[in-house]
Amino acid sequence: MNNLTLLMGASMVMGSGDVLANSETDQIQQVLQQYEQHLNAGNSGEIMKLYGEAPVFMPQHAPAQVGRNEVQNAYDGVFSQIKLKVKFTTHEIELVGDNTAWARTSSAGKTTILANQAVIDEGNSELFVFKKEHDSWKIHRYIFTTTTPMQSGE
Amino acid sequence: MNNLTLLMGASMVMGSGDVLANSETDQIQQVLQQYEQHLNAGNSGEIMKLYGEAPVFMPQHAPAQVGRNEVQNAYDGVFSQIKLKVKFTTHEIELVGDNTAWARTSSAGKTTILANQAVIDEGNSELFVFKKEHDSWKIHRYIFTTTTPMQSGE
Repeated sequence: MNNLTLLMGASMVMGSGDVLANSETDQIQQVLQQYEQHLNAGNSGEIMKLYGEAPVFMPQHAPAQVGRNEVQNAYDGVFSQIKLKVKFTTHEIELVGDNTAWARTSSAGKTTILANQAVIDEGNSELFVFKKEHDSWKIHRYIFTTTTPMQSGE
Repeated sequence: MNNLTLLMGASMVMGSGDVLANSETDQIQQVLQQYEQHLNAGNSGEIMKLYGEAPVFMPQHAPAQVGRNEVQNAYDGVFSQIKLKVKFTTHEIELVGDNTAWARTSSAGKTTILANQAVIDEGNSELFVFKKEHDSWKIHRYIFTTTTPMQSGE
């Protein structure tokens, strides 16, 4: 799938008068695509290449993880327990100024619980803040929340 | 508590060279404070005054709610089931350009399940995108995710 196809699937909000808007949102969409790929591969090292210098990751069921080491440890913790197979859909990418953007996505698929190999439905909403660092768009802030119905016991 | 006290509690990232930064972040902090107040009061009508013209709210256990009617219905659904008593802490407010900002907060407190009056611990991370509309800062995108440990059955 080429980048144009990817972008056509996204509902984009362009920055005001930015002639490079297509190119910039294209780059951000590529980061999102790489995030999906490395998340499904359970590869925290590759995921960290997508994060910036001072990231904050807000996982479920744990406090916000502030800083690169903490973010990577959080992913390692997740990947030690589950294997994800999810597909992201980009709903919005908005460029704000030259060096900031935010994106709203959703994801859906399956999660395998490694302890017992149980496979459950996975669905989330996500909100990203991106920063351009050294000419590359990096994940600066990231939060997700489940969209699957509440289970008994919650 | 005056606004200065409130802002001193926040870890703020200022917009580059914006001489009005203090005033703008002060206004956003006031929106966050009002959100806490109206959330604890279970008042969806007052909450909707804090949202902008085209909001998206990403609650847990449901798809993203797009548009003012859908957002208000989602709050009404929540308030029909639970009563919140939470305190928000602002960790970051960043102004980006003249009309956009994002904020990261966390909240902690108690939730009463109305069906059985059970009281449980409540804790969340939150990420907001704000837009300035008609000279007022409004919530444009909002997502939260629980920080409490996973329960059996999830």
